[in-house]
Amino acid sequence: MNTSKTLDINCDLGESYGIYRTLSDEAILPLITSANIACGFHAGDPATMRLTVERALEHQVAIGAHPGLPDLQGFGRRRMDITPREAYDMVVYQIGALDAFVRASGGRMHHVKPHGALYNMAAEDMKLAEAITEAIYQVQPELYLYGLAGSELIHAADSIGLRSVSEVFADRTYGTDGKLTPRSQAGAVIEESGQAIAQVLRMVKDEVVVSTDGTLVPIKAETVCIHGDGAYALAFAQEIRRVLESEGIKLSAHTTG
Amino acid sequence: MNTSKTLDINCDLGESYGIYRTLSDEAILPLITSANIACGFHAGDPATMRLTVERALEHQVAIGAHPGLPDLQGFGRRRMDITPREAYDMVVYQIGALDAFVRASGGRMHHVKPHGALYNMAAEDMKLAEAITEAIYQVQPELYLYGLAGSELIHAADSIGLRSVSEVFADRTYGTDGKLTPRSQAGAVIEESGQAIAQVLRMVKDEVVVSTDGTLVPIKAETVCIHGDGAYALAFAQEIRRVLESEGIKLSAHTTG
Amino acid sequence: MNTSKTLDINCDLGESYGIYRTLSDEAILPLITSANIACGFHAGDPATMRLTVERALEHQVAIGAHPGLPDLQGFGRRRMDITPREAYDMVVYQIGALDAFVRASGGRMHHVKPHGALYNMAAEDMKLAEAITEAIYQVQPELYLYGLAGSELIHAADSIGLRSVSEVFADRTYGTDGKLTPRSQAGAVIEESGQAIAQVLRMVKDEVVVSTDGTLVPIKAETVCIHGDGAYALAFAQEIRRVLESEGIKLSAHTTG
Amino acid sequence: MNTSKTLDINCDLGESYGIYRTLSDEAILPLITSANIACGFHAGDPATMRLTVERALEHQVAIGAHPGLPDLQGFGRRRMDITPREAYDMVVYQIGALDAFVRASGGRMHHVKPHGALYNMAAEDMKLAEAITEAIYQVQPELYLYGLAGSELIHAADSIGLRSVSEVFADRTYGTDGKLTPRSQAGAVIEESGQAIAQVLRMVKDEVVVSTDGTLVPIKAETVCIHGDGAYALAFAQEIRRVLESEGIKLSAHTTG
Repeated sequence: MNTSKTLDINCDLGESYGIYRTLSDEAILPLITSANIACGFHAGDPATMRLTVERALEHQVAIGAHPGLPDLQGFGRRRMDITPREAYDMVVYQIGALDAFVRASGGRMHHVKPHGALYNMAAEDMKLAEAITEAIYQVQPELYLYGLAGSELIHAADSIGLRSVSEVFADRTYGTDGKLTPRSQAGAVIEESGQAIAQVLRMVKDEVVVSTDGTLVPIKAETVCIHGDGAYALAFAQEIRRVLESEGIKLSAHTTG
Repeated sequence: MNTSKTLDINCDLGESYGIYRTLSDEAILPLITSANIACGFHAGDPATMRLTVERALEHQVAIGAHPGLPDLQGFGRRRMDITPREAYDMVVYQIGALDAFVRASGGRMHHVKPHGALYNMAAEDMKLAEAITEAIYQVQPELYLYGLAGSELIHAADSIGLRSVSEVFADRTYGTDGKLTPRSQAGAVIEESGQAIAQVLRMVKDEVVVSTDGTLVPIKAETVCIHGDGAYALAFAQEIRRVLESEGIKLSAHTTG
Repeated sequence: MNTSKTLDINCDLGESYGIYRTLSDEAILPLITSANIACGFHAGDPATMRLTVERALEHQVAIGAHPGLPDLQGFGRRRMDITPREAYDMVVYQIGALDAFVRASGGRMHHVKPHGALYNMAAEDMKLAEAITEAIYQVQPELYLYGLAGSELIHAADSIGLRSVSEVFADRTYGTDGKLTPRSQAGAVIEESGQAIAQVLRMVKDEVVVSTDGTLVPIKAETVCIHGDGAYALAFAQEIRRVLESEGIKLSAHTTG
Repeated sequence: MNTSKTLDINCDLGESYGIYRTLSDEAILPLITSANIACGFHAGDPATMRLTVERALEHQVAIGAHPGLPDLQGFGRRRMDITPREAYDMVVYQIGALDAFVRASGGRMHHVKPHGALYNMAAEDMKLAEAITEAIYQVQPELYLYGLAGSELIHAADSIGLRSVSEVFADRTYGTDGKLTPRSQAGAVIEESGQAIAQVLRMVKDEVVVSTDGTLVPIKAETVCIHGDGAYALAFAQEIRRVLESEGIKLSAHTTG
């Protein structure tokens, strides 16, 4: 008889900046189990960080730092040719900034998930992955790293004893190598929500994903990333929760000890 | 018989940014007992913060965060009309960012000293002073606040039980109200180093300062701020150390318990 | 028999930044006669500037630069203690940046309106007002300055021969000195749109405003500022246009020669 | 009998920012014939731009804009994955900002030279090169583009009728394809100043460069880039001027018509 499976549902929050408001944080919080909060480099500002931490604590959602490249104008999505040392420094800085708000609110930081181009670059580049995981470990060794399932980020965390949480995507297809189909290729995105939910269910229950050429590829699904913006995103979040719970999957952030 | 007096010598460090280097941190470190390290808003960047923390730890200098206004171009010296809430948020953010580097290096943060216009505004404005001291206390209650002797910053710290260190200036004159003579007035700055050192000595030993009209004004001198840039600054630091030590004053950052 | 009166209707546009979108530029453009386009310091970015210039040209709306303080996080609304020289430099820079997009699109810049705290500070401070008007004049002497009616900005423009356009507000009350009632005081804002439109009509037709204590105060109304955000703002813009046109007032940006 | 050859000597100037000063602009100005002035994205600020324009005009040095990536912390040297449209927009913006200072000082802008990573990326990427040259042409068609000799930047300028000036380097070696030896390879940099000057002389007089494997490669040398920082750089600038003049080469910025 199987033990029950657990899945974390994470979402990027706290992306407002100054007068610029992203509006749906309040609506998505009841639907997720962990929040990745922007730290002021690609999005977010000190006031937004404080407010988002407070809201996440109220909803008992696990709080993570979401460090990005120093590129507010590009929302941290433009790759920059940074050194591992620069990656280390910008991650330490941003984790610390968010952690101060968490401590001031009486909470405890749970995880770190790199954002955008930093996440994607580190998924492929072991030197960057090592720099980022060392940054996390040296600031606080009990933090979890959230990284793309099967990526260099997960490998780097494993190699230094940093706890990791493997992330999968509901609305993206996978190749036979277990990697995401690049967005530049046709069929990279799953448009139909039923299909997206079915993919996640398969990943969690059977630990496989059906790749773009039909083969079954092993995958570790510990957290699924959902979007927080727009009516469609909220409806999808509600639907995936309903299906996962009806299948007996426990929705919770990961914790050990 | 008197117990021995203790004085802390503090200096602002870590003010480089990107390719822009301020050169004298290495030379001043052996001469001071505590360092206020810029946190990236008015000066400093993540790489500079890491390196400066490491150097300070090597020299066993007490490490403090030096949060400033978000104004790199104006070096945090231009007053901005911020709310107490904005002051709170920017101080929490910057303390946290520096603290992460201190923790990653195995050290422990000792104090927080607001920078430039933020320091000056909070010295006079109780609402700002309260916001800043609460920010410090809520992030880490055992931190020291460095603030202008007799200012609202010190009063605000006292009122919430945050430990404070009263700062005096060697090269500035004081009025009968115990406040600094504004730089816009003649006689605000003491040019002659012997006179500057004598003023500090009097402050530490007798707990008074001779005001601009010749009266003795009580003052609490727990730390003196010195500059780190230029040959003159280094010579002055060496001379003030020599005189203070020859007078039996212990040079050390403040610690309790 | 009277000659017909002319009124300009201006609105701040191009305030998006990166992924952050302010949505109503397209809707407000058909209703206004001049646009003040943010230049990247308090809002706006190069892509937004280009697009907004192109839209304004399509709608034959007069294009102005809208320079602000270097404070994206505070949207240029927080006063900063800048020198007249700093004001001069930041205005030259921002005018030039916008002008390049106007030239690249085959248009011609019409005016400059300082934004937010810079506008308010210069309305009261002759040194800042002089610095800003000199900046405009030296870059392009045929530009118009938009400034608060009766303020130092208008006086400074007059004194150097820079053409000015006096701005009035529909939804703000005025004191007997002809100045705006500060927002911190009760009764500063006119909530009822009929009353706001009546005030503008009186200003344009009779060149007076009824002050908060009931006296008639002379005022020069050459342009009225309207807001571009929200359904209410659009409805108000449509209504004020309708009333002004029905009263025979010509709606047009000012031009001479 | 040969007509006389002309060579331009260019240098990057105006790289100070706020309190951060790069000191040698004053010393290098008498030795160069054109200046590339930073525009605030990778270095420079409005005050520095104004002062540098004024100094360049005093020394009758041709003034160029030196637009860079929006990365002050990385000095515009870190490649960023920008679209051609983003390159276009950031170049238009920066040219305009500098041009306003030039116009306010009564001068006339002469050229545009992209900086750092933007220069290097555009040298290799025709789409970026086209975007940058179109930006220059649309703002002011009579401007010169300064670009790496033989690069896509020069080709893109040629294809739209924008005038270009081919840049060579004294202290870098070239491969048989006429491209710079990458800095990551041994022998990329010429350390010995006599050899560097000889290379430039050969380029100007014979329109060839001796490649790393000894073959003669044709090259067009219209401007040579020199550094402005440090005693060595100044000595080199003086020496290359002396040798070039003694060989009868005219030192001047390029102008037509």
